[in-house]
Amino acid sequence: MTEVKTTFIKDMEFVAMTTSGNKIVMDTLKENGAGATPMELLLAALTGCTGMDIVSILKKMKLEFTKFEIVVQGERAEEHPKIYKKIRLIYKLYGDLPPDKVIHAIDLSIDKYCSVSNMLKSVTEITYEYKIYYPPSSVHLKNR
Amino acid sequence: MTEVKTTFIKDMEFVAMTTSGNKIVMDTLKENGAGATPMELLLAALTGCTGMDIVSILKKMKLEFTKFEIVVQGERAEEHPKIYKKIRLIYKLYGDLPPDKVIHAIDLSIDKYCSVSNMLKSVTEITYEYKIYYPPSSVHLKNR
Repeated sequence: MTEVKTTFIKDMEFVAMTTSGNKIVMDTLKENGAGATPMELLLAALTGCTGMDIVSILKKMKLEFTKFEIVVQGERAEEHPKIYKKIRLIYKLYGDLPPDKVIHAIDLSIDKYCSVSNMLKSVTEITYEYKIYYPPSSVHLKNR
Repeated sequence: MTEVKTTFIKDMEFVAMTTSGNKIVMDTLKENGAGATPMELLLAALTGCTGMDIVSILKKMKLEFTKFEIVVQGERAEEHPKIYKKIRLIYKLYGDLPPDKVIHAIDLSIDKYCSVSNMLKSVTEITYEYKIYYPPSSVHLKNR
């Protein structure tokens, strides 16, 4: 069982303490807010989840990269509840990586292993693109 | 649009940077892990989301509390994708709060306002209980 304990601090600020002993400060989106918003955390969780899968899958494929970034963009509903209607993931990989292997790794994560994407995909449309930077001067692009 | 940029650091460690300028470190669950796990972040996001709603609703009801904590427990599937099959929220409120108003505030959050619960509830069973500590020596309990 995973457990998180969250305490109200002041105004709209909350601090969560995780089972792993990590502290997450949350606040609303405002100037000088104390922490990330809950909906930002959701996107961060998605990138961490799929990112860890892909690192693990590429390692099994014996493929190496020098840098790996994921940008995620969420488009929210205008009415309550303001859920993400669409989520776009942009995977940026730096290294000599065959595009078909990268696509396979991403699909395995999004469709099978990543708990976060698999909890969100029934209510939101998750799409992705990837960019492979190799050699450093060129870029391979692909959308799904 | 909400955007988060996440960078691979090493091993399974990632750092997310949110639109609000906050940094979230993520890692797998292990001794000396560098940050929270993505699935812990998901639970933290849920508590922050429903917590902020409830603070806001109680304020509109002109009800005051001295302390407010939320414990959340998630039970994961045994097979991939290891989504949360059940999520249990325990709201702990300290103050002279009428139970019916507290129930109304929680229900409004979970069912209508909280974007996170409304993204998760179609794939996971979300239940809650609340505890009102007032006067400090007694506790009112209720399950939904």
